[in-house]
Amino acid sequence: MRVYLAGPDVFVPAAHARAALLKSVCARHGLQGVSPLDELDGEPAGWSSVPEARRIALRNEAHMARCAALIANLTPFRGPSADAGTVFEVGYMRGLGRPVFGWSNSAEPFTERTRAFLGIAATCGPDGAWRDGEGMLIEAFGLADNLMIDAAILGSGGALFTASVPEASRWTDLAAFERCAAAVARKLAG
Amino acid sequence: MRVYLAGPDVFVPAAHARAALLKSVCARHGLQGVSPLDELDGEPAGWSSVPEARRIALRNEAHMARCAALIANLTPFRGPSADAGTVFEVGYMRGLGRPVFGWSNSAEPFTERTRAFLGIAATCGPDGAWRDGEGMLIEAFGLADNLMIDAAILGSGGALFTASVPEASRWTDLAAFERCAAAVARKLAG
Repeated sequence: MRVYLAGPDVFVPAAHARAALLKSVCARHGLQGVSPLDELDGEPAGWSSVPEARRIALRNEAHMARCAALIANLTPFRGPSADAGTVFEVGYMRGLGRPVFGWSNSAEPFTERTRAFLGIAATCGPDGAWRDGEGMLIEAFGLADNLMIDAAILGSGGALFTASVPEASRWTDLAAFERCAAAVARKLAG
Repeated sequence: MRVYLAGPDVFVPAAHARAALLKSVCARHGLQGVSPLDELDGEPAGWSSVPEARRIALRNEAHMARCAALIANLTPFRGPSADAGTVFEVGYMRGLGRPVFGWSNSAEPFTERTRAFLGIAATCGPDGAWRDGEGMLIEAFGLADNLMIDAAILGSGGALFTASVPEASRWTDLAAFERCAAAVARKLAG
């Protein structure tokens, strides 16, 4: 079964080696991992003249449409939330009605992570709600990220796996990913 | 025509008044704005026992399914990218194959915004590519946000409107939103 591997893993220095590693974990669980970096079989000839950014996006959307499920690396990326491209893809696959799984190398809940990111700008009002320096509410549901992400994963029949790993191995530790791949394999076999 | 109003506008202190204001702009353009804060007509009785975060998500997904298009407030939120919930919803609506429009009160391109966010941690390598302190690539396509977002908007037949507004009016200025609503009305009439 084909599984799309969403995540900022495409941004690491050795991105193709990283993709191969993720795929090897998938293969151990009987899954065929599909990386955003993969060529698209039968890519329409007309796409060669499309600007690179749009061509990448079209290809990723086409990859997702051909996959039975999605695994998202939701490790926080340049802020309290996951990488925006990854979050887009979680939404896209949920829109297609297919199972979405997530994993993250941060086990800290979203609320605490957001407050840590904001530092002294985060304050608690008389109503007990935490807000940032612009008065914008901080979600407090004990979830792993914005509620749309957590709920989409659960609602789709997926699951979310987190691990608390040292800062230095945030983009290399694959223990949570391995548990996630095993769960996807069980789900798709069921 | 019903249009879903995605955005961190739900987090402002007077969120219901904000939603009413956005809807009044929509109405001027012949559109019925649907806010994530709206009750869902005919909400299944069983949802009353679902935990609040999941109920909100189910309701928002149902709202989107009943809308002809989506307008996303992509103003950067706690980092270089848009709010994660909003980005999820852009992906969801794109997955449903419907037009997605965006607006932002930052006119600074994503690449420059990301470099500013990272500060001295952003460095340019011998290959000319900019990376963050963890070696993760910084997208450099001259877009408004992660390429999946910009491309989904264009690919769906939508459009993106940006404005450069003072920091203090980031969450109140509606000039870009108004231009966006006008474009949605033209698109849905066409």
